[in-house]
Amino acid sequence: MGNVINIGVIGYGYWGPNLVRNFSELPGAQVRMVSDFKPELLAKVQARYPSIQVTTDCRDIFADPKIDAVAIATPVSTHFDLALAALKAGKHVMVEKPMTVTSEQALRLMEEAERRDLVLMVDHTFVYTGAVRKMRELVANNGLGDIYYYDSVRVNLGLFQHDVNVLWDLAVHDLSIMDYILQAKPRAVSATGVSHIPGKPENIAYLTLFFDSNLIAHLHANWLAPVKVRRTLISGSQKMIVYDDLEVSEKVKIYDKGITLNGDTEKVYEMLIGYRTGDMWAPKLEMTEALRTEGLHFLRCIEQGERPITDGEAGLRVVKILEAATKSMKEQGRLVELDLAGVIA
Amino acid sequence: MGNVINIGVIGYGYWGPNLVRNFSELPGAQVRMVSDFKPELLAKVQARYPSIQVTTDCRDIFADPKIDAVAIATPVSTHFDLALAALKAGKHVMVEKPMTVTSEQALRLMEEAERRDLVLMVDHTFVYTGAVRKMRELVANNGLGDIYYYDSVRVNLGLFQHDVNVLWDLAVHDLSIMDYILQAKPRAVSATGVSHIPGKPENIAYLTLFFDSNLIAHLHANWLAPVKVRRTLISGSQKMIVYDDLEVSEKVKIYDKGITLNGDTEKVYEMLIGYRTGDMWAPKLEMTEALRTEGLHFLRCIEQGERPITDGEAGLRVVKILEAATKSMKEQGRLVELDLAGVIA
Amino acid sequence: MGNVINIGVIGYGYWGPNLVRNFSELPGAQVRMVSDFKPELLAKVQARYPSIQVTTDCRDIFADPKIDAVAIATPVSTHFDLALAALKAGKHVMVEKPMTVTSEQALRLMEEAERRDLVLMVDHTFVYTGAVRKMRELVANNGLGDIYYYDSVRVNLGLFQHDVNVLWDLAVHDLSIMDYILQAKPRAVSATGVSHIPGKPENIAYLTLFFDSNLIAHLHANWLAPVKVRRTLISGSQKMIVYDDLEVSEKVKIYDKGITLNGDTEKVYEMLIGYRTGDMWAPKLEMTEALRTEGLHFLRCIEQGERPITDGEAGLRVVKILEAATKSMKEQGRLVELDLAGVIA
Amino acid sequence: MGNVINIGVIGYGYWGPNLVRNFSELPGAQVRMVSDFKPELLAKVQARYPSIQVTTDCRDIFADPKIDAVAIATPVSTHFDLALAALKAGKHVMVEKPMTVTSEQALRLMEEAERRDLVLMVDHTFVYTGAVRKMRELVANNGLGDIYYYDSVRVNLGLFQHDVNVLWDLAVHDLSIMDYILQAKPRAVSATGVSHIPGKPENIAYLTLFFDSNLIAHLHANWLAPVKVRRTLISGSQKMIVYDDLEVSEKVKIYDKGITLNGDTEKVYEMLIGYRTGDMWAPKLEMTEALRTEGLHFLRCIEQGERPITDGEAGLRVVKILEAATKSMKEQGRLVELDLAGVIA
Repeated sequence: MGNVINIGVIGYGYWGPNLVRNFSELPGAQVRMVSDFKPELLAKVQARYPSIQVTTDCRDIFADPKIDAVAIATPVSTHFDLALAALKAGKHVMVEKPMTVTSEQALRLMEEAERRDLVLMVDHTFVYTGAVRKMRELVANNGLGDIYYYDSVRVNLGLFQHDVNVLWDLAVHDLSIMDYILQAKPRAVSATGVSHIPGKPENIAYLTLFFDSNLIAHLHANWLAPVKVRRTLISGSQKMIVYDDLEVSEKVKIYDKGITLNGDTEKVYEMLIGYRTGDMWAPKLEMTEALRTEGLHFLRCIEQGERPITDGEAGLRVVKILEAATKSMKEQGRLVELDLAGVIA
Repeated sequence: MGNVINIGVIGYGYWGPNLVRNFSELPGAQVRMVSDFKPELLAKVQARYPSIQVTTDCRDIFADPKIDAVAIATPVSTHFDLALAALKAGKHVMVEKPMTVTSEQALRLMEEAERRDLVLMVDHTFVYTGAVRKMRELVANNGLGDIYYYDSVRVNLGLFQHDVNVLWDLAVHDLSIMDYILQAKPRAVSATGVSHIPGKPENIAYLTLFFDSNLIAHLHANWLAPVKVRRTLISGSQKMIVYDDLEVSEKVKIYDKGITLNGDTEKVYEMLIGYRTGDMWAPKLEMTEALRTEGLHFLRCIEQGERPITDGEAGLRVVKILEAATKSMKEQGRLVELDLAGVIA
Repeated sequence: MGNVINIGVIGYGYWGPNLVRNFSELPGAQVRMVSDFKPELLAKVQARYPSIQVTTDCRDIFADPKIDAVAIATPVSTHFDLALAALKAGKHVMVEKPMTVTSEQALRLMEEAERRDLVLMVDHTFVYTGAVRKMRELVANNGLGDIYYYDSVRVNLGLFQHDVNVLWDLAVHDLSIMDYILQAKPRAVSATGVSHIPGKPENIAYLTLFFDSNLIAHLHANWLAPVKVRRTLISGSQKMIVYDDLEVSEKVKIYDKGITLNGDTEKVYEMLIGYRTGDMWAPKLEMTEALRTEGLHFLRCIEQGERPITDGEAGLRVVKILEAATKSMKEQGRLVELDLAGVIA
Repeated sequence: MGNVINIGVIGYGYWGPNLVRNFSELPGAQVRMVSDFKPELLAKVQARYPSIQVTTDCRDIFADPKIDAVAIATPVSTHFDLALAALKAGKHVMVEKPMTVTSEQALRLMEEAERRDLVLMVDHTFVYTGAVRKMRELVANNGLGDIYYYDSVRVNLGLFQHDVNVLWDLAVHDLSIMDYILQAKPRAVSATGVSHIPGKPENIAYLTLFFDSNLIAHLHANWLAPVKVRRTLISGSQKMIVYDDLEVSEKVKIYDKGITLNGDTEKVYEMLIGYRTGDMWAPKLEMTEALRTEGLHFLRCIEQGERPITDGEAGLRVVKILEAATKSMKEQGRLVELDLAGVIA
């Protein structure tokens, strides 16, 4: 298809500029209009990209028949209304994570996109990084053996959000990475956390995810930490990964370490545990900016009618987990069951 | 008092040699006898310390009237019987952590020591390090402001224990540090974890501790990690600490970072959050080996009839938390209330 | 002065875009024209900054009477001709480091600027960083005591230059930092290095600088290193600094460490050396982008007729050292005397 | 041979205890006597090793006919006299590094050992570490391609020596490692350094070593650094190594990085440089304590009449380089030629 895909971007705050820059530089796409309710942000758009139209009313984007697709980078509470309006106007949609505030909203968007045969993609950006793609490849090829646990720490002195707790802001990254890397889906969660500011949502939270097997996952999300940490451990029966997103070049390290079991598992008292340590290996990673890879994927899905890797279902699964975690956290760790099965089907 | 205190050491496995070496070098003490049921370990004692008597029967230690005090470095399941026998034989006791397998056992030992007016000390070694003592000093002088959270990661590829889960082996360190540093005591716990070896106790575990205030604590203990991590974050309203025990010289870093709140807390929607970053400071730490400091403290308690910093009550509080955590973990994070109040009084 | 200063930028390769971006955002300045001989780079200027004129002929910049000042970001071999032409056209000049290829050229530019009463500034960018300014402040206030040494490692897998050796590309940063921080000026150099590519300038080099006192400086510059290192040690009789430019937040660490001397220095054999270790401290640093601070300084020098911190003399001193070092390197470490005295006066 | 080799150890200061401990634990050896002129150090020997004889007069060791071999761990200025006396008494000798104060002394010892058919080994301990052996293996198998450079930084706040400069204390390690790893031997040196304590030898020094090819080596040795660094870069045309001895587990990292040259080297202006980055790999290393491996090697050389890896010639080569470096340093970097050829033959 030779035609250029015209993009409208809603929201030019923290993430919007990255969307505009990447879509502007992609072959086969051009950003036609940007909306934001702050005129001073639109002035920046005009200074940098004189050919892009700007508006304080996002309905101008929906109304423009030349616009094929809309990228939404606004606070999560507005995602549903904006995405629904975009779909109803016949536009393909890429919406920031988390997809919506409730799973009902997510389902509603999926239905609308389905009915209208439009692409609905959730911007789970990390899924498109070289590091995460390499880890998925390793797991998919059984390079780690049976997966034992996924443990992630994502903390820093970060911008407190006023409407969602820290899980919706930080743990959402890990949930989207896990959703992409791990075959298994969690069956229940237990979460704890507190707020240190009266009346505000939890700024520190811990989330355990249980699976059908003895796989366990745990996320620590925190807006009030003195140092920035982005470290994930993924341990398997054969190998273990340390994924540190703050490392400049060796983000993914694979350790040939672990334990080996000898003996009859029936006679557990006789089981011998052996410790194995071997080489460490840090594979070269694809360094393309994730948002560029993701943008190309979005364009391709539109052109070829393909389903995005991070489709509405992926977005819905993540929202369902966040809902359950928030519920568990309110009850100080009470186990909350998940039903992602229907989702996956 | 001019007399030398004679020490008997039970257990010469992993920790026993450190006890023997330190007590041998302390002024005012001498190690008189070492027992272990493995003759090859006793041969090592004889080669290195020809003046120390050795025995495979620890009852020889209890029976020796010259021995004033007994240090017990055996598996936790044996602590109660050995410590009780030592106390009944009129010996002062220093017992490895965790103190006992159950809180009933811990209470029983405390009663016995009380009745006989003997020193009962639990070997919470970290409490005697320069790093932990400096942190306690900072907290006690209100150097951090209100304490917001205590978060610790203590993971490595470690020796799997057969009789206790990983919390009893690794988290016990953090619990003893918290018990010493924090004024407040936890009121409930929620823990999660799994075992990756059929029939064995949990080798990965996460423990959240709730307090009366909005203080929260969380510990990650793990025997199956590719890298060794010993990192604790302690965050207060004024300052934050990063305590990394693997750092050679700057184990404790104090960050003048945090948030400042403006506005009426009644009108939460108008509250403004300001972010503050300032200098970082790594105080010089006392570098004496912890076990030497602890040994001197034990001798002093015996001589002066003082109560140890890490007395039976401290040991009991830690055991109570471990019991509750193990219970919670069996039920996948269910909140288990603690009653440490009676203990503290 | 209410008038805006109009800037022309020559060269839009690696550094030019940073100059254009910063001057565009400075109050009191605007970029009027950019020249580069590559049309594809000019196209980028037009896309991002539609109001800026572009040209492939830098003489258009010299000829434009509205342009007050010229920033030159081209290969070093072209600096002299371009800067001289700009000065002759009556423009103030900011020229990339190193200032020129020879010290004669640098002197010629200084004379021309002097005669015409124009600002001549060398873009020693690091001088304008918060880290370097903090270190100068510490040294100036005698916070380190007598300075013992300055040692810097600046290595990475970097772009090989075809016309200058690695000292002119990497060590130039350290020389400009030293020129700013240290009161004393070097009196002689000894340098070694080799090229690993036939016919190309040295890609690895080591440079020692001698001073009148027992201060010594040493720089390691290397385009062929597997890891990126930017680490400087500055040691004084009272305190020591580790300056690591790759650290995100604690770039400057000050150690209260060192040796203390006791005894009569006449009787050296009786001198006792004591070792001192104390706290470490990482001061909060000004985080403004260096080029912004530098741009404001350039504008102020133009408006107020002030002399820049990094004036032609600073540029000349650095070029003189690079000349001497290159000479020494050709003769495998032979001592080459410097005469910076006349320069400083 | 079934007989145990009896060892005498001279000097029980910093290194002697390691020698005694290792030889005590080796099969086929036993430590028979230890000498030191400080009685308080001998008391420590007696306490720890009651079966070892002690003496303040090292001639007792030479005179004991049961002693087969002598290990010398005394200040370097005494090495020659002690080693010569030991050889004359018919003992095999292991002497600390550096071997002697002058190359004449080293040659004299070699002659004496040769004449008497005794083993003369220099304790270049690092040669026996898993890390160094792995690097030699990599280089020997041409795993790095042509070697471009060896660069090492070995600095800390260290004990100032009174009789030798810092090169003899710290750089000696790197010289012995290079002697073992690299096929080529240096042909000349240029060194710089200063003393910051009146009347004392240089405490900071930089040493460049030139080879016949474009291989270059450089060592930074420093007793007055705020942080401890032990980092070596070894770069080849195919791969590069970072060897960090302070890393706990991944001491040797191998980078598949470098440059590739295209084009006719005659037409240098047309040569294209390509940059290559690939995987990083940290091989598992043998973790046996180096001194144990070395002790076993010493015993084997005695028993089998083999020549040690770190024989007198290796010791002599290192001393020759240190002599030349000291000479060059006195003359501020003047090139000093080496003649190691006769040595190697």
